[in-house]
Amino acid sequence: MSWRTLRWHAGAVLLLDQRALPEREQELACGTVEELASAIEQLVVRGAPAIGCAAAYGVALAAQRSEARSLAALARELADARARLLRTRPTAVNLAWALARMQRCEERAARAQEASVASVASALLAEAHALTAEDERICRALGRAGAELVPDGARVLTHCNAGALATAGYGTALGVVRAAVEAGRRVSVLADETRPFLQGARLTAWELQRDGIPVTVIADAMAAHLMRGGEIDLAIVGADRIAANGDVANKIGTYGLAVAAHHHGIPLIVVAPTSTLDASIASGAEIPIEERAPEEVSSRFRARNPAFDVTPAELVDAIVTEHGVHRAPYADSLPLALPAGR
Amino acid sequence: MSWRTLRWHAGAVLLLDQRALPEREQELACGTVEELASAIEQLVVRGAPAIGCAAAYGVALAAQRSEARSLAALARELADARARLLRTRPTAVNLAWALARMQRCEERAARAQEASVASVASALLAEAHALTAEDERICRALGRAGAELVPDGARVLTHCNAGALATAGYGTALGVVRAAVEAGRRVSVLADETRPFLQGARLTAWELQRDGIPVTVIADAMAAHLMRGGEIDLAIVGADRIAANGDVANKIGTYGLAVAAHHHGIPLIVVAPTSTLDASIASGAEIPIEERAPEEVSSRFRARNPAFDVTPAELVDAIVTEHGVHRAPYADSLPLALPAGR
Repeated sequence: MSWRTLRWHAGAVLLLDQRALPEREQELACGTVEELASAIEQLVVRGAPAIGCAAAYGVALAAQRSEARSLAALARELADARARLLRTRPTAVNLAWALARMQRCEERAARAQEASVASVASALLAEAHALTAEDERICRALGRAGAELVPDGARVLTHCNAGALATAGYGTALGVVRAAVEAGRRVSVLADETRPFLQGARLTAWELQRDGIPVTVIADAMAAHLMRGGEIDLAIVGADRIAANGDVANKIGTYGLAVAAHHHGIPLIVVAPTSTLDASIASGAEIPIEERAPEEVSSRFRARNPAFDVTPAELVDAIVTEHGVHRAPYADSLPLALPAGR
Repeated sequence: MSWRTLRWHAGAVLLLDQRALPEREQELACGTVEELASAIEQLVVRGAPAIGCAAAYGVALAAQRSEARSLAALARELADARARLLRTRPTAVNLAWALARMQRCEERAARAQEASVASVASALLAEAHALTAEDERICRALGRAGAELVPDGARVLTHCNAGALATAGYGTALGVVRAAVEAGRRVSVLADETRPFLQGARLTAWELQRDGIPVTVIADAMAAHLMRGGEIDLAIVGADRIAANGDVANKIGTYGLAVAAHHHGIPLIVVAPTSTLDASIASGAEIPIEERAPEEVSSRFRARNPAFDVTPAELVDAIVTEHGVHRAPYADSLPLALPAGR
């Protein structure tokens, strides 16, 4: 993989511009928190784990660029930065998770002997690097855990992009696909194009083709027809937030896919790092669903644009995290205890 | 309504170019059968009843333009014209139905006393006019019949375009909506955008907005989420072919919508003229599904593009024809006896 979803370079956060893919591979440099927050809102970078990494770098950026002369002044600036970043997208919990982790890092660093603005800034950049490196390691771990669910010859339906582009690298749903391929299994992917932003048709197809994994794009409304025709063996998707009972918020269309998979007896597997688990909410009913600008759906007529939906746990056959494969009842099986460092 | 889906003018078939809507309202003039057949293939005109009308005018066009000097020569030309038109689209049975009706008209006219090339051509043009006028009358009749299923305040989901643009006028699914509105009921429509050709986002939204009927466009993958949220009262769609057992072929995505509607206890109503019934086939398994060019889905990556799917009769709550509202078991309730003139 010769590209990175996001990276720190020369004092700025560089994002592979996902609006331009697959036509152009270009990076957008964000030199301020406002530029980065705006880029997150405009989907330059998207995908719950990647948004978490981007937000972590955003806090590091604020500290690196700070001209504060006291730790108290720095703390106020960083609180503002966190608030701005938190406002960008409401559904993915990884954003709040990453910001909370950066806040704990800041507090630790500020309590250290001889703490200074520079030492806190340095600690925050190291933490953003660590969080991002960890995200890719976690993706590889959950990929290995989930690969056991993917038989040789499997024809996998996926929705949106839960791949390397949605994470620091390797991917969640596509991490499972990659791990199965690395384990020697033949896997082909049907990618829902995923309107309105076409994450499937543009991003999933692009990154799988670069890896030599067979991928075929379909319109979202074709999935049920192909299920009925026996052309899909299992569905694997990512998640933006998972409630304590196993209800899953993910890209709009996941729920319809779950209903169709259930109707046809096709397993639906959700793949996410534990940073996507939200132990603080009992069910999906509490997950805020982002309603984006209707112009993304129709520039001419009245339109609706909910960006996510909630799939109830009873339609989910397995949830895969870096700790393994979890089955219902999820309130018992999910690793809801806060992971180390949280 | 100041526009027509299709009309005969100055010796040519004029089609409102549905590829250009809603940006431009322009007609395409077809002066030869080949031009018309190509226009049907390219979706300048689409929708099962409208394709039937267009094909009828295509036969009339062949006769009007013929330089045949004998009835036998004319018959050969018309057989070629029918064969070319029949090849354009495989799924909608209205095409074959209209061509068979034109063939019977030709044979009647050729048997008449003092029959000539000119008299047969004249009879065929009159028949195409009659078939088209009848299509709009039938739409109004099935609209009235179906309107009883639409309560005041109904929020109706529809897929693709089964409106005036899919017929000679008034529409099938949207004919029911129009008739309910004319009966004084408040009805709002959620229009699936219907990828890849966007018949919903472009055509359904355009014609409903012109009629002042509230319409909101959604991405196809949003429908199930809105059903779960209690925002949809019933789903009304058209059909391209209905088998003797009530299985329904319609635009790709209808089946997924049917599964989701069934899951949520939302009635699915199919609306079509009896010319869409195919008494010759027992079930939907025999309906040929057109696979269109993958480039319509993705110009860059491998793609699939089935243009239709089959919804089994058990997911259909009612089928509305010009003869009324039919309920399961459809083999008993559908007016499968060939209608007069067929």
